[in-house]
Amino acid sequence: MQGPLNRRVLLKERPTGIPQAHHFELDEARVQPLREGEILVRNDWLSVEPAMRGWVSAVRNYSEPVELGAVMRSFAAGTVVESLDPSVPAGAKVTGLFGWQDYAVVRSPGIERVVTESDLPPSTALGVMGINGVTAHYGLLQIGRPSRGQTVVVSTAAGAVGSCVGQIAKLHGCRTVGITGGSQKVKLCKETFGFDAVVDYKAPDFVNQLTDACRDGVDVYYDNTSGAISDAVMGHLRSGARVIICGTSSISSWDPAPFGPRVERHLLVKRASMQGFVIFDHADYYETARSDLARWLRAGELRYLEDILEGLDKAPDAIAGLYRGENLGKRLIRVRPEART
Amino acid sequence: MQGPLNRRVLLKERPTGIPQAHHFELDEARVQPLREGEILVRNDWLSVEPAMRGWVSAVRNYSEPVELGAVMRSFAAGTVVESLDPSVPAGAKVTGLFGWQDYAVVRSPGIERVVTESDLPPSTALGVMGINGVTAHYGLLQIGRPSRGQTVVVSTAAGAVGSCVGQIAKLHGCRTVGITGGSQKVKLCKETFGFDAVVDYKAPDFVNQLTDACRDGVDVYYDNTSGAISDAVMGHLRSGARVIICGTSSISSWDPAPFGPRVERHLLVKRASMQGFVIFDHADYYETARSDLARWLRAGELRYLEDILEGLDKAPDAIAGLYRGENLGKRLIRVRPEART
Repeated sequence: MQGPLNRRVLLKERPTGIPQAHHFELDEARVQPLREGEILVRNDWLSVEPAMRGWVSAVRNYSEPVELGAVMRSFAAGTVVESLDPSVPAGAKVTGLFGWQDYAVVRSPGIERVVTESDLPPSTALGVMGINGVTAHYGLLQIGRPSRGQTVVVSTAAGAVGSCVGQIAKLHGCRTVGITGGSQKVKLCKETFGFDAVVDYKAPDFVNQLTDACRDGVDVYYDNTSGAISDAVMGHLRSGARVIICGTSSISSWDPAPFGPRVERHLLVKRASMQGFVIFDHADYYETARSDLARWLRAGELRYLEDILEGLDKAPDAIAGLYRGENLGKRLIRVRPEART
Repeated sequence: MQGPLNRRVLLKERPTGIPQAHHFELDEARVQPLREGEILVRNDWLSVEPAMRGWVSAVRNYSEPVELGAVMRSFAAGTVVESLDPSVPAGAKVTGLFGWQDYAVVRSPGIERVVTESDLPPSTALGVMGINGVTAHYGLLQIGRPSRGQTVVVSTAAGAVGSCVGQIAKLHGCRTVGITGGSQKVKLCKETFGFDAVVDYKAPDFVNQLTDACRDGVDVYYDNTSGAISDAVMGHLRSGARVIICGTSSISSWDPAPFGPRVERHLLVKRASMQGFVIFDHADYYETARSDLARWLRAGELRYLEDILEGLDKAPDAIAGLYRGENLGKRLIRVRPEART
């Protein structure tokens, strides 16, 4: 029996900076018959993350770079269509690093999880119930450790991680300040994600807006951007503040590192800390986080937004689009637009 | 009865940057008769610290700036010569923020401690048994938390804090790398303080020296300098590294903050942290630290060096001299050169 045809998005060239459409190419290959222990997953949803820039970069990083000619690494949510591993039967909904392609052949260690929350939309497995929600939960609660009444500032506040951070902080009794760009996202942060104050970093009076919003100082800064936004926040740290380094989306290249105002004096006089983390180190924490996230979702206390691209052929330009700021909410690719998954 | 004449070093002008001799002036005033509860301390030893730059700065800081016309704030070790507080009798050896002057009139909350280690030289109460030793102990062990076999890098390695950090790290089974300036201090770090490797930041091949010394990466960086020295260390951090921000001696002014290479990407990909602290927050820790420090001193396992200026009139230029790098070891002022204290 011949296997199905598999469309794949391959890394063609290694970008310096942000990966663009021309760094990728589409091809097709026949799926080979399964061998003992193999599982055939049909991808339904693919994820698009800012971190993908790092995954294709040759610069020393927290993960091995995607090889040239290989399928682009990506989280995906799919359905097992054939299985030679009895522990993961056909029909199971699964997630994993299945890549930007129609089908993936994996063994059970390659299955990140079997999705059991059948009442939640399958796409949430990649966003609010996936890496984004878990990242927000871990970084905020395990590194930021905010107390009731403290002020939590988040950059990329309208994004998949940032919006989740703000809402989790609010659920823990904090005052939340979101930093985002443009009036549409400001509105979204206020009305959908419930930030107490929202600051527009694209506005000419950004620094004054931030000063107004942070007049009592900042206890926790969840940093997804680095750059000028962070520089402005650092001046508002309160004594004992925690800065969580989750991402650096405002910096187009770290080779070499761009210059900015030194942070040491802020850290010293405010007895403050900056701490980086990579969520993949904390796989043993995922279920703790997901149990909270699912409960909040079911109670209507945690809202999320999805930006859905229709069809695998939208993938090559999808990362560049993130950095152009064209999405509202978690960017996903629905692999087959005709499918109702 | 007329009180003794008290020579005092007053802050005359507020410096921007490093305080120079001309920012201070000497005067004399008669000590007033004691009132109920007051204690007259004769200062024997005065301390000179890099942090004094911050104490006289108008820039927002961790302590109130010394007022213009006031006696320069300073740690001092002295002898109680008269007391109207039965809890601190005449003859007691005491330390406190007694200031750059011959005599201080204080009440018991102004006594930091009564020195009980009568077998140790009195001057050690200000250095290795004082704020420097305690700062090294707290920062390294409570924030840096090095494990046996890990690599600990220290800047200003020949200094009062740095030399102590290196030796405490060594006593905890770490590999120690000291960064200092000039061949005399390099020799001191190797021969007196026992660093495993010493790097000369003034040498033209500093970056290569550092790379050689840190070939297995850096687990703990105890940062007393900030600036180009720290920039060079950051590239060598190992996964999970801790950077302790204790001082910023290489930066002459923070108003405005100078620019340097951004640190966020290092912190993120290395899952590393930077944490500032101010030792005065941790007064409840001092005795824990001192008990270790005294034990190591008595066992000959902890060495220290003192740079003694003779006479109170040496005080005004003493801070500037520190920043000129002219001292070897903890800088102290012996208030009355003729005294054998």
